[in-house]
Amino acid sequence: MKKLSTVWCILLLQLTAFAQHPKTFFTQQEAAAVKKSIALYPLLNQSYAAVKKDVDGWLGKDIDVPVPKDPAGGYTHDKHKANYTLMFNSGILYNLTGNEAYATLVKHMLLKYAALNPTLKNHPEATSSSPGHIFWQALNDANWMVYAGMAYDLIYNSLNAGERKQIEDGAFKPEVDFFTKGLKNWFNLLHNHAVWACAGVGIIGIATGNKDYVDMALYGTEKNGKSGFIAQMDNLFSPDGYYTEGPYYTRYAILPYMLFATALNNTNPALKIFEHRDSILLKALLTCMQQTNTNGSFFPLNDDLKDKDYTSNELVVAIDVAYKMYGGNEGLLTVAKKQNRVILNAGGVAVAKSIAGKKNLPDYFPYKTIESTDGAKGNEGGVTVLRNGKGNDLTSVVFKYASQGMGHGHFDRLNINVFDQGNEILLDYGSARFVGIEQKYGGRYLPENAKYATQTIAHNTITVDETSQFNGNVEQGSQYHAEKLFSSITNPAALAVAARENNAYKDVALQRNIYLLHLPEGKKLLVDIFNAASPNEHQYDLPFQYSGQFINTSFKYTADTQKQEPLGTGNGYQFIWKEAEATVKDTTIQFTFLNNNTYYTLSSLVQGEAQVFFTRTGANDPNFNLRRETACIIRKKSKNQTFLNVLEIHGNYDAVNEFSTHSYPQVQQMSLLRNDAEYTIAMITIAGKPLIIAQCNKEFGQSGKHAFSNGEIKLEWTGPGYILYNGKELQ
Amino acid sequence: MKKLSTVWCILLLQLTAFAQHPKTFFTQQEAAAVKKSIALYPLLNQSYAAVKKDVDGWLGKDIDVPVPKDPAGGYTHDKHKANYTLMFNSGILYNLTGNEAYATLVKHMLLKYAALNPTLKNHPEATSSSPGHIFWQALNDANWMVYAGMAYDLIYNSLNAGERKQIEDGAFKPEVDFFTKGLKNWFNLLHNHAVWACAGVGIIGIATGNKDYVDMALYGTEKNGKSGFIAQMDNLFSPDGYYTEGPYYTRYAILPYMLFATALNNTNPALKIFEHRDSILLKALLTCMQQTNTNGSFFPLNDDLKDKDYTSNELVVAIDVAYKMYGGNEGLLTVAKKQNRVILNAGGVAVAKSIAGKKNLPDYFPYKTIESTDGAKGNEGGVTVLRNGKGNDLTSVVFKYASQGMGHGHFDRLNINVFDQGNEILLDYGSARFVGIEQKYGGRYLPENAKYATQTIAHNTITVDETSQFNGNVEQGSQYHAEKLFSSITNPAALAVAARENNAYKDVALQRNIYLLHLPEGKKLLVDIFNAASPNEHQYDLPFQYSGQFINTSFKYTADTQKQEPLGTGNGYQFIWKEAEATVKDTTIQFTFLNNNTYYTLSSLVQGEAQVFFTRTGANDPNFNLRRETACIIRKKSKNQTFLNVLEIHGNYDAVNEFSTHSYPQVQQMSLLRNDAEYTIAMITIAGKPLIIAQCNKEFGQSGKHAFSNGEIKLEWTGPGYILYNGKELQ
Repeated sequence: MKKLSTVWCILLLQLTAFAQHPKTFFTQQEAAAVKKSIALYPLLNQSYAAVKKDVDGWLGKDIDVPVPKDPAGGYTHDKHKANYTLMFNSGILYNLTGNEAYATLVKHMLLKYAALNPTLKNHPEATSSSPGHIFWQALNDANWMVYAGMAYDLIYNSLNAGERKQIEDGAFKPEVDFFTKGLKNWFNLLHNHAVWACAGVGIIGIATGNKDYVDMALYGTEKNGKSGFIAQMDNLFSPDGYYTEGPYYTRYAILPYMLFATALNNTNPALKIFEHRDSILLKALLTCMQQTNTNGSFFPLNDDLKDKDYTSNELVVAIDVAYKMYGGNEGLLTVAKKQNRVILNAGGVAVAKSIAGKKNLPDYFPYKTIESTDGAKGNEGGVTVLRNGKGNDLTSVVFKYASQGMGHGHFDRLNINVFDQGNEILLDYGSARFVGIEQKYGGRYLPENAKYATQTIAHNTITVDETSQFNGNVEQGSQYHAEKLFSSITNPAALAVAARENNAYKDVALQRNIYLLHLPEGKKLLVDIFNAASPNEHQYDLPFQYSGQFINTSFKYTADTQKQEPLGTGNGYQFIWKEAEATVKDTTIQFTFLNNNTYYTLSSLVQGEAQVFFTRTGANDPNFNLRRETACIIRKKSKNQTFLNVLEIHGNYDAVNEFSTHSYPQVQQMSLLRNDAEYTIAMITIAGKPLIIAQCNKEFGQSGKHAFSNGEIKLEWTGPGYILYNGKELQ
Repeated sequence: MKKLSTVWCILLLQLTAFAQHPKTFFTQQEAAAVKKSIALYPLLNQSYAAVKKDVDGWLGKDIDVPVPKDPAGGYTHDKHKANYTLMFNSGILYNLTGNEAYATLVKHMLLKYAALNPTLKNHPEATSSSPGHIFWQALNDANWMVYAGMAYDLIYNSLNAGERKQIEDGAFKPEVDFFTKGLKNWFNLLHNHAVWACAGVGIIGIATGNKDYVDMALYGTEKNGKSGFIAQMDNLFSPDGYYTEGPYYTRYAILPYMLFATALNNTNPALKIFEHRDSILLKALLTCMQQTNTNGSFFPLNDDLKDKDYTSNELVVAIDVAYKMYGGNEGLLTVAKKQNRVILNAGGVAVAKSIAGKKNLPDYFPYKTIESTDGAKGNEGGVTVLRNGKGNDLTSVVFKYASQGMGHGHFDRLNINVFDQGNEILLDYGSARFVGIEQKYGGRYLPENAKYATQTIAHNTITVDETSQFNGNVEQGSQYHAEKLFSSITNPAALAVAARENNAYKDVALQRNIYLLHLPEGKKLLVDIFNAASPNEHQYDLPFQYSGQFINTSFKYTADTQKQEPLGTGNGYQFIWKEAEATVKDTTIQFTFLNNNTYYTLSSLVQGEAQVFFTRTGANDPNFNLRRETACIIRKKSKNQTFLNVLEIHGNYDAVNEFSTHSYPQVQQMSLLRNDAEYTIAMITIAGKPLIIAQCNKEFGQSGKHAFSNGEIKLEWTGPGYILYNGKELQ
């Protein structure tokens, strides 16, 4: 009898918990546990103190809730943003301290919103197809709903019935109605903005006890499951957790996923939301973390702002929630330590407790070679990250052969980026935007984002005839995806991946094979074999957007010393100043640059004639919106072309002690022993030793048997490729 | 009797010490003390381990002593450089471990030099007027002598008489003879290269017991004291310890000063070399430290390589020696901690011991507002550094009104640089050189150094008629120096300094007043009043070489979007691309840029008409030798012109959290209430409050009484200037 009654008690407690407030960000029990832990764990303590200091500065003051007027970065925008954070934090403190003043602060603000919101129409600065009321775009209104909804829940117990009605009808209903009726189509999209919208409506639904709101949030306005939060979990990530807009937007989307899931888990545990789709939220988070550089910045796939990193608030929330919900992951703990703050619920307690207990956390997230498929079913190409090295000596090659990436996608099929020793070596412009800076186009994406940053020439992949992939048309690009041909990622000394893209240009087939090699002498090399094949004559431009100080070239060029003009007239070319050019013929050309004390040499095989351009962005940029970035562009003209390039990492420059070691490359000569539809056999001489790369261009099966012989060299191998260095396979 | 005998014992011990080897880098007793301390102090221990690891890798190997062939950065250059370091370190280890293998390594190398050196003539890559034998320039041979001399002394006890003779006659005598005979004029110069030369000859003299060498080193080849080490101590520094070539070269010169002084102090303490000229070596070191940025990089006065900082080897030696010789200076200890290594003698022990004992060393060197005179007598102008703020929030304004600075001087009289929060905000190109990188002009000063980096337009001071000061003629420039008019550095809220330069241009008198103000609201402002006066019409260009992202301007400009051309044709102008220009009239113009999350706005008064150029370096640079750096250049034409500029530090951009605060300037309007030969009265409105700066242009006495009235405003003050903000003096 005793046992049974305990069960009953627990059940009753749980049922009461569902009915009790708070129940979104944390429960009453959870709040009590957080309160106890504050004195115990330094990271929790300092996070609490920081929140308290922020909020206490506003206690007893009359907080401005201005009539919306300014775009992002302007006063009213930033004020409303600050307001929802303040309400949320003050609500938390009310529960952790019991001090009514925190609840009163929130109440007064929510009552002001209750007066303001019913009066609002589209924001005067609204320009997008999903305008906001409080902000210039609905997305920001959704942010407001998520936090204001939680804030309301957090102070619910302090309000009387009249105040509750006033806030629910005045502050929330107009926003929910606007989203689910006025912006219904947008709300029902499968898109990261709609994730925020659903989370906002859903959290308000939970906070106000409105089942209709919660159901619309979970299953779409028609409640048929074709849209809404569950459909978003099922469709926006690939089975591996890759989000098609790229890791920068995973960061943005993961926050509402984690917060709404937390509220759902508190109130409807039967939904098992965190376990949904084989724990897709954890996969999404870990994939996003793997797609960062050692300094925490996101790989610049699609629209990406380079000054964001994994210490951003969204990932503090996501990591704390995931660490608690999915069991202690040490990699997440390493990142949490760099974030140096936690959220004030059970997730934050778990992280702060673990960090307090671990003295020897690794310095870096456990980065590894990783392949992620794209598309809800995982059949729309993907992204491979080849990696070699440990700690700060990590080399990462990012190879993108994914689908378009929706509105934030770039025309960059078969693009590569290279990171080494914490630095971006072959770079991607990312996106052209100064988020939050009003003077720069209201903080929105700049016109140069679509005109330059998304264009093919802004990347490290082939541009055909000075025209971007899919003619720069997002709809066309969204119909296709690139395709992986094979990969070999088990031997860290010889990593390989190949992909093709046959739709980006009408009559051109593109195939790129990427090899990251680690020679026994310690040298790392990236070998890049890029085939373009067409029945017709074309101009193929392959840029290497390098970051570093130009050191020297093995070939003569003519510099534009007295006058600079743009490289072209459209498709991004109009933004590129031509600084120098060369015509080269039947040779191996080399270009060395220095990045943060390491030398990098690009060696390139030229068969027949090619042109080389050294360029810098900044033409046609009257508002100084673009960063000035450099590229070495190799241009070849004909029907079929193979670009054989090697990026060699070598030497060291110690400026303080004035020593320069191994500043010259060791790659000496390159040739193609065979190159046709069936095979490419490349030979690269490195300090006298031959490196041979044999690759299949037609048959990629693991068991296919292949052979090559030219009298001097005889090769036999099984599978899609074969690498021999000085007569031996790399280990 | 007992007491006396103790005294005798000590005297005998000391006399023996003078006769005993080693006696340059350390004495036998000192070595014994170092040996004991290794286990005690972590920093000493790790420094010892690092040296041992380096040297142990070479033990038992045959070390190459190649026939000199390559310029700086090439194999033979770097090998000989590595060799002298290896000999020196191995010699130290012989004394600390007693292991003969270390002595043998050095012996074999010195014997190889004994065979090589007598065969050498001028280096095949020699281009300077002081060619070297082992290296392309004699300066590097002097480096070799300093270290090889100490290495010989360190292993002296292990050698037999024949070996000693072979080394002294073969390795050293040809070098000493070459310096004191072949290069006699150069050796006798009062110049930092000659400091190295004297230290080399002197240390070899001490190591080999050759009084003739020591006397030539101390008093010049004629031994008359007009040149040599003592004359260099008397003449190369100003009485404040400022070295006319600038702090980057103090760094270079201080090493031989400190090492030779150490050897002299060990062998001839009666010379009291460290006390010489009121402890000038300590003054030189502290002045050099004060002329660094918070990140340790040297202020870019004259030729300066920006990637050098106070962690360089020269300053490790200097700080360790000085810390021991001059008593524990905590500021030096802070720097020593960042250097993270010590030398293996008593100096290093003292530093390592102190650091081990102090847990709460300050994070930064104790930077302060400091004025340094230039010239051996301190009467050739100087450099003032105005400073406000603590820790990383330090703002430093460097104002240079010194003499030419010998061969490394720039044509930059009345130049300013600004550092804030660890970043260079208004910058100076420094020097154009990639020291140690063979591909870049053999690592020597690039042609662009003289053609661009030293020219006036590369600085933040007025260029008249597109011609550098003194027509870019070093000899002419060396005849004159600028002159300080007054300074006021006691009130940190209102720092002021003024200087004039009347010789740089034939008929133009230049006067610049710099004010670093800290308003009660917390804002920092640099106010810059720059007068140019001439009986004739001129074109005055005042550049602000800014570092940061262009945000916006208050005025319209025309950008060169389709074509870029150089701003001019000579005197450095040919290296500058014009990116945009504007014509403005009777207004206050504003330009905002963002550097590392802080906004900076330059507000400039335009009376009559002015042109504004936005520029970037890189024109006429076929070898990509120049960094691309940006400037805003204000051009005015007439006889007399006053440039009234304000650099305002404001706001914050938090990219991770997408918040931007105070991104707009508060300076609103500017005017000159009076501006003539007697007074300049400037009024600057800041967020509605008036800032009035009244300055005397003729009488700079502290007791002079002055008055101004224009009906509305009535001022009365005593001294060279008066600052009123919102009706009150700044506190």
